[in-house]
Amino acid sequence: MSPESESFLGNAQDIASRVHALLLERLQQAHGLTVATAESCTGGNVAARLTANAGSSDYFLGGIVAYSNQAKATLLHVNRDTLETRGAVSAECAREMAAGARQAFAADFAVSTTGIAGPGGATARKPVGLVYIALATADEVTAEEFHFPGGRALVTDAATEAALLMLLRGIEARQP
Amino acid sequence: MSPESESFLGNAQDIASRVHALLLERLQQAHGLTVATAESCTGGNVAARLTANAGSSDYFLGGIVAYSNQAKATLLHVNRDTLETRGAVSAECAREMAAGARQAFAADFAVSTTGIAGPGGATARKPVGLVYIALATADEVTAEEFHFPGGRALVTDAATEAALLMLLRGIEARQP
Repeated sequence: MSPESESFLGNAQDIASRVHALLLERLQQAHGLTVATAESCTGGNVAARLTANAGSSDYFLGGIVAYSNQAKATLLHVNRDTLETRGAVSAECAREMAAGARQAFAADFAVSTTGIAGPGGATARKPVGLVYIALATADEVTAEEFHFPGGRALVTDAATEAALLMLLRGIEARQP
Repeated sequence: MSPESESFLGNAQDIASRVHALLLERLQQAHGLTVATAESCTGGNVAARLTANAGSSDYFLGGIVAYSNQAKATLLHVNRDTLETRGAVSAECAREMAAGARQAFAADFAVSTTGIAGPGGATARKPVGLVYIALATADEVTAEEFHFPGGRALVTDAATEAALLMLLRGIEARQP
């Protein structure tokens, strides 16, 4: 992992460009990897950043923006029980979203986001800025909890960046 | 239909804000309508514009970014025959994508985009900038063909704007 990928030095588009360069390099070495997304609070921004790069269709299969709980359950196969007991904004939901997207698109990697972008939807235990991001690979599904400052636009941007960074780290960690 | 919605006077975010205001107004009148998206060439940008508005979860159910043909077929139920004979960039594919998203999310309206954002993927008959956008409602599915100038970023932005405008017109046309 390169040192600068350990902190939020770049913006989302810079990170998406590094994901792009890395995946094209793997593709040229005949170790092609594919990517999918499952987004709630980022609302399509992670997919939009990835597809801003020309040639992203070589590895990006697609994404599901699951804004409603119904969409999370039917399209990403998130457990109804998870939605009812842990809530849509939970590490478990993020994990199930990532695993669901990886399966739906038959992708090597899938990254997911779920959180409270605000200004509505917050509770005492789940404040604006709380975001869970998960990455599903062939080996495991990992989730991280974030608390981002600011309003809706800032939280969305920060969550988009964090999701792309988690994807980048996952690809970097994978031996070719 | 208001006069200004007939031409591309606003930018994508302005149009998304008008969609937002209109749908919240209908919701307050107890004529709530729901929206879904199916995006290929816009790669998540239509969903991202819609969800930039706080409160969009009241009407936006979600979207599918179907970048690969496989995703178009399995998640949006686009006919394999359509993909083979007409191609992914065709009015028929756009119509099937919109109808598929409307069904997948059980939404009142679904808007779809498919086109050549460039710089790759163009052919003599399908140049960069060729985009099909479709809108599916309870009554019909309509598609429009566009030819946008410029490179990848400009084509994506123009297609995002046109999709939001088609959605706006559809909502405006619907009697409460």
